[in-house]
This record gives sequence, structure tokens and C-alpha cells, in this order.
Amino acid sequence: MTLLTQLREIVGDTHVLTDAETAKYDHDWTGKYQATPIAVVRPVSTQDVSDIVKICAAAKTAIVPVSGNTSLAGGTYGKDAVMISMERMNDIREIRPDARIAIVGAGAVLSSIHDAADAHDLVFPLTFGAKGSAMIGGALSTNAGGSNVVRYGSTRGLCLGLEVVLPDGQIMNLMSELHKDNSGYDLKNLMIGAEGTLGLITSAVLKLFPKPRAYATAMVAVPAFPDALRLLNDLQAATGGLVEAFEYMDALYIADHLTMFPKARAPFEDKHDINIMVEVGATAPNMTDLQPDGTIPLVTLLEGTLGQMMEDGRVVDAVVAQNDAQRREMWERREAAGEVMLLRKTMINNDICVPVDKVDDFFEHIDARLAELDPKALHSSVSHLGDGNIHFLLFPTKDDAQHIDILTEAVEDVVLSLGGSFSAEHGIGLTKKPSMARRKDKVALAVMRSVKAAIDPDNIMNPGKVLPQTN
Amino acid sequence: MTLLTQLREIVGDTHVLTDAETAKYDHDWTGKYQATPIAVVRPVSTQDVSDIVKICAAAKTAIVPVSGNTSLAGGTYGKDAVMISMERMNDIREIRPDARIAIVGAGAVLSSIHDAADAHDLVFPLTFGAKGSAMIGGALSTNAGGSNVVRYGSTRGLCLGLEVVLPDGQIMNLMSELHKDNSGYDLKNLMIGAEGTLGLITSAVLKLFPKPRAYATAMVAVPAFPDALRLLNDLQAATGGLVEAFEYMDALYIADHLTMFPKARAPFEDKHDINIMVEVGATAPNMTDLQPDGTIPLVTLLEGTLGQMMEDGRVVDAVVAQNDAQRREMWERREAAGEVMLLRKTMINNDICVPVDKVDDFFEHIDARLAELDPKALHSSVSHLGDGNIHFLLFPTKDDAQHIDILTEAVEDVVLSLGGSFSAEHGIGLTKKPSMARRKDKVALAVMRSVKAAIDPDNIMNPGKVLPQTN
Repeated sequence: MTLLTQLREIVGDTHVLTDAETAKYDHDWTGKYQATPIAVVRPVSTQDVSDIVKICAAAKTAIVPVSGNTSLAGGTYGKDAVMISMERMNDIREIRPDARIAIVGAGAVLSSIHDAADAHDLVFPLTFGAKGSAMIGGALSTNAGGSNVVRYGSTRGLCLGLEVVLPDGQIMNLMSELHKDNSGYDLKNLMIGAEGTLGLITSAVLKLFPKPRAYATAMVAVPAFPDALRLLNDLQAATGGLVEAFEYMDALYIADHLTMFPKARAPFEDKHDINIMVEVGATAPNMTDLQPDGTIPLVTLLEGTLGQMMEDGRVVDAVVAQNDAQRREMWERREAAGEVMLLRKTMINNDICVPVDKVDDFFEHIDARLAELDPKALHSSVSHLGDGNIHFLLFPTKDDAQHIDILTEAVEDVVLSLGGSFSAEHGIGLTKKPSMARRKDKVALAVMRSVKAAIDPDNIMNPGKVLPQTN
Repeated sequence: MTLLTQLREIVGDTHVLTDAETAKYDHDWTGKYQATPIAVVRPVSTQDVSDIVKICAAAKTAIVPVSGNTSLAGGTYGKDAVMISMERMNDIREIRPDARIAIVGAGAVLSSIHDAADAHDLVFPLTFGAKGSAMIGGALSTNAGGSNVVRYGSTRGLCLGLEVVLPDGQIMNLMSELHKDNSGYDLKNLMIGAEGTLGLITSAVLKLFPKPRAYATAMVAVPAFPDALRLLNDLQAATGGLVEAFEYMDALYIADHLTMFPKARAPFEDKHDINIMVEVGATAPNMTDLQPDGTIPLVTLLEGTLGQMMEDGRVVDAVVAQNDAQRREMWERREAAGEVMLLRKTMINNDICVPVDKVDDFFEHIDARLAELDPKALHSSVSHLGDGNIHFLLFPTKDDAQHIDILTEAVEDVVLSLGGSFSAEHGIGLTKKPSMARRKDKVALAVMRSVKAAIDPDNIMNPGKVLPQTN
């Protein structure tokens, strides 16, 4: 029996796609990686996934998981592989509001989890631009970050339990609903962020949080990055840690955004270099209840902090959203980054992280290097500044592979010299493998390879991703 | 050259202890596990540790790390092993207040880290009874929990980076100061909680938090556990998530505490079955500033929630601490648990966790089982109730190994039937290995064994701990 026949016996003919039928799955969002897979299989249950993996394992055929296909790093490139799409495993199985947990299938779309939590006045705080198509399986597999990490932590911190199908098809049950569970090695966090190279995530237990009763959102311009860190810390002090998002956009991003969306408005009348979108969100009534004088304490605290910093010369401009439409406008400007980045063609997309008190050093040092290497190169940054996570897009003046390598290495040099990471939240996939080979601690890389060999000895799980072959 | 001579060349004669000199290290806090090691070695640097491990690895001699020796699970039993004490690697290398991080050596005592953070008006929130002697290396190796997990998460969530000496003596640098770093597998969390079986933690980057400007602390008695969960959720709603501790003590614990500390006071005039110590802590001035009417909003919110629940019959008694001495008295009662547990001799010490909405079920089901198996057995519980983490001490009527096994399995049956864990925060060590063999998902156990074999093929790192040989 051929592999395809075996797969059809498991999921039925209509859920084994080949050739042109795979077009929807055969490329990721960036369009940089395209390959027709052997087949796309659409299981409906964990048992299906286990059966599919066993068949592929017996045939030593590569398996590539795919959920929303919103990877920015080539994580779902499926050449010569059976792709397993999680889209039918999209059940939101259980929400227990008192325990603040949701139990979901790997194919649940992020925004559908948001909606399900919202119905109980709760939030699942993981959010980013692709939330309407990204699925939780992919978000977990890449330890996706996004805009609310500053408040709620990254995906690892939002997940209590997992179910995983291993490379031999066995089902590993780590579906803990617990806040403490010290029973052996942390396999949950090993699987999260492994980009499907150690196993396929099929279900998860997620943490939910009380839904903020009010938000206060503002666009703020500051003279320099140390002022931004001061703004963050002052706001955290004033509100007791209620900063939900702290996002930086530079002047070029603001300009490109207006080019791409001509109906959009600029954030300020004047142009500024350091534009920050800040949002605070509160659940406590004494922060959110309308006061007799018509004010809301949370908004007053934000305005008070901004006013004080303006007096001190640490804030040069600020606009506080006066209604939900203005708040949405601020978010839309920031969340358009995925589209705005496509405006300029030759691009080095750096998803980097530095310690929060070294952002200033990063820009100072990289500008000095660029002045030597490509003085007319442009760069544009949007950043989850509260996490030190900078999406630093570099536009060299020539589209030349060697030149691009030199500039990429210059960015990595600066990042590493500050104790930073060449991959903050997008993961490694295929795109960042050269950086892994060059920059990751060699001892750590060797341990990763030995873990991969121990769990997936035949190298069938998303082969070729994450781990470079040589240093 | 003998092993001891080689070790003396690295650290000097005075830091290689043998025979009677090892008495301070040869038993843990419970006194259940005692063995004279080959030697206790006291390195002062990561390079020392690396050199020591290389020598032991060449001789295939077992290595057991020891820091504060406050394990409750036999994690530092050192028979036929070289024990490496981290006590001299106790430097608090750097505190960067703006970035909210501390960089410390593995031997830094928990309370010394607390003091260093306090000097900057920050807190390192990991705390438990043994904080005066427990060192951060051990706390990380066991993913220690404690009383503030409900607010700040477990040790994993409080650690940004690690330095680890691997079983072959290589130094793995994972000393990230970053809030986002998706560069390959999560080796940091693999090492945290591995109880020294995969490598020795030598340094760490820790997260710090703003120090609360005010606390409100109370003892509360509720009629039933669902009322306790309601109290937790109502208080979180009223304060916006400011609950720092939510600790349960049963009537027998309160009585035993008074027996052991005759000068102590009972929490209430009347006796209650469900006694809860709750603490909320706030950093925002509008929660903590003294109001014109002499009140503090945080205290008012706590009192208001308790008052409303009393009216509803969901709280039967409550005492709010009126000053710091009363607050300390409440904490001392709770933190005496480590001593109070020694009052009764024959004991099964269960460190279990259940989903927070299933605590009631746990007690109902275990009492039904005990009514069959040992109707006159007593039990006493203290609990990090906000995490579902129950220290369930069972005192059987006969000190008989088979009887104790039957009762232990009964507890595990109930815990597992509720989706709980047989080990919440104390780890596995030697004590919980039979439970690991019986109760851990078999597929997960096999993956753990393959990871151990890949990283420590000669099984020299804290051998015999965590992983049972057979299922």
C-alpha cells in the first residue's frame, strides 16, 4: 500500500491533498519559501495524528506541521515532506472560568480563543498582528511573543499543559491544569519553541486572565531611549504594573505606514524619531470606575505621568486616545507592521532582543557600523520596547548576497556585544539558521543536537529547521 | 595522582573536606538521608566547578551538588559521590534596577538576594520557610515554589538566564538578560527543576519586581473550599490581581502549631476547619496612600471584600492585621510548617497539586478512602491554596511499610483522578521516585530517560535521583 493510500485510510480521501490542492499550504506568509509537499493531511483527532506519524516514521518520510502558516522564518517549508495541517483540530474543548483555564486543540485560531475567553469576561492575552489566522499550535511551537508579553509573559508562561505526538507516533500526555508540577524534567517548555522538530503539539491547557474593565492608550514621543525606559518604569510605578503594551515605531515606519495606508493619520502633528504606543489596562474598580468629576483614575494616572515627564523635558509630545475608535487607530498603526514591511523590497529582517536598558546602545553602535559599511542604507524599526525586542528592518543600498551577509553580521556583532539575541520571538526556522551556527553558544548548540538525536533519531520531524548542521 | 589530590590542586586543601569534616553536608534537613561522601569540595568559581567535574568525569565518579541542603526529598544524598558545595559562589554580582535584574552566583542565600533587592526598593519574590539557608542554586535546581507563586509565578518564571556546568565539564552559557529569546530549544527550563541530574547551575540572571509600598494581610475562616476560591477570585477582581499569598492551614495544623510554640496565639477565638492567610500587596500610590479619612485603599478593598462575603455567609471569621507585628505573627504561623511537621512521627508527606477548582473534591475523596483504609488516621494540611498546592501530611495508625504504601497509593489515586500531580514543588529526589515510576506518563518518562542519557551518558550527575530505573 502506498503512503498516500495509507494516509487516506486514516483521514479519508478529501483530507489528503496533493499537487495543486496543496497551493494554500505550500508557502508561508512571507512568500519566500515555496515547495509542493508530498501531501497535506488534515487529521481531526490526536489519534489521527499519531497514526499519520507512525506511517511516516515507518517510511522515514519527513513531517512538517502547519497551522496558520504565518511564520516569518520559513518554519513550515515542506519540500519532500508530508505536511500535517492542524486546522480541523480547532475545538475549544473546555473553559473553566473559576480555574481560569481553557483547553483547546492545536488548530484553534488565536482570535477564536480570544472570543471564547471574552464570553466569560476573561482574556487569553497572547496577541499579535496575525491573530486572525495564526493557530495556537503554531504559536506554541514558536513560543510566539507579541505585544502583551510585557504584562503577561511569553507563550511559555501562558501554557499550563500540552499533548504532544512524538516522532515515533506515541502520544505524550502533559495536559496539566496545574500551577505547580515538579514531576521530572520540563518537557512542556522543551516542546514549546521547538518549532515542531521534537514532536507535534495537538492540544494545550492555557491560562486565562480577568478582562480589563478599562484601558488607557496613548501615543508618546520622547527625546531618547533612556526617557522611554523611564516612562515605562514610572508608569509601572504609578499604576502598580498595569502596562499592557509598550511599542516603539520610528519615523521611517510612521512615514511608510502613511504611504501604504493613505487614509491613515499621522500620530502627531510634528514628526518625531521615537514614537511610542503605550497602553495600560486595569481590572480593579478603583482604577476603572468613573469618578464624580467625570474622570477615570487609570486615565488620570497615565495623563499625570505624561504631564510630569513633559515638565521634566522627558516627553516631547503625547496624545491620549479619547475613545475606542482612537484606541483602535493606534493599534492598527502598530499591527500593520507585517504589511508595511513589504513596502521596501531588499530587506534584512532582524528580530532581535537586547536588555531593556541597552536599546540606546544598540542604535548608537549599529549606526556607527552602518556609517562605515553602507552609509546610505535605511533602517526602520518597530519594537516591543518594553521587552527590548526590536524588529530592525535594514534596507541596504545594494541587493548583493555578500553585502547583505556583511550587514547581517554587523547587526549580530552589535546585538551579541550587548548580551542580546539574534532571534527574539519569530524563531529560527530556516531563515536564522546561519545566525544559530555563528552566534549560539557552541556548548548549548551541541546539547540541542543531542536532545534532537535522542528524541527524533531518524530526523523526520520538521527536518532542517532550527538546528544548523555545522557551526 | 588520586582523585582527592587532584581536587585539592583545584580548590586548595582547606576546601576538600573528608570523613568527619563532611558532617555539616552529609544529611539534609529532614535527617532521613545520611551518607558520608567521598569528599565535599568547595569551589569558588565556575572554572573550579568545570575542573572538578572534568576530574570526576574522567574517573566516572558521581557528583552531587549541595547548596543550602534544605531538600525535603533527599535530593542531596551523597553516598559514594563527590559533593560540590556552592556556598563560596555566593556573589551578588550585579543589580541593575532600571532593567529589574540581578546576576548572582549559585551559592547566594535566598534572604541575601532579598536584602540586596530591597536596597533598591525592589523584591526578588521567591520565598519560603527555609529562605535563610536555601541557596538560589538549589532553588533553581528544584524549581522551588513557595508562597508568592500565586502572584509572581514559580522559579522558572523568575529566572531569565543560567550558567551551567555540564556532565563533561563544559560550561554552557545561557546567561540571557532578555525577556524574549527564541534561539533554539529551551535549555534553561530543562536545567531548572532537573535537580542537578543534567548539569550544575553555577550562576543565574533573576527578575526583580517593584517592592510593594503597602500590604494588607488577614486570617480568614470560610465554611468550604468553593468559598475559598470565590474569596481568591473576588479579591483578585477587587484589587486587580494583587493577591501575593493565599495560604490554607487546617484545624490540626493550628493546634499542632500551638503545641509546638506555646507562646503563639491562635488565629481566631473560635476554632475553624478552613483557616486562610491572605495577603495583598500594592505598589501604586492610589492603592497605598493614606487617605484623608485615615484609611488605606488596599486595606479598605480587603475589608470590603471580606465584609461582603461575611454578609453572604461565605466568610465565617476574619482578622485583618493592624500592624506589622500582627502581619509577622501571621507569616510566622505559616512558615513554621517545616518545624511543626516534625511533631508527629509516622508521617506520609504528600506535596501534591490539584486544579484550583478541585481542592474540595480532593478532601472529599481522600476522606472517603481513608474511612475504608485507616479510619483513625489523622491528617494535617498546609497549602499554597491559590496554586492548588497542598502539603497533605498523613499520620497512619500503624508504622508499617505495606500499610504506608497502600495509603500513599490511595492519595495518588485521588490526586491523579483529579488531574493533579504527586509532586508540586518539592521535587522528586529519592523520596518520590516510586511515585514517578507508578504515576508519571510512561511516554514522558521514556523521553526524560533519553534526554538524561543524551546529556549525561555516564550517569555521573546526581545519579539515582528523579528518574526511576523501571516503570
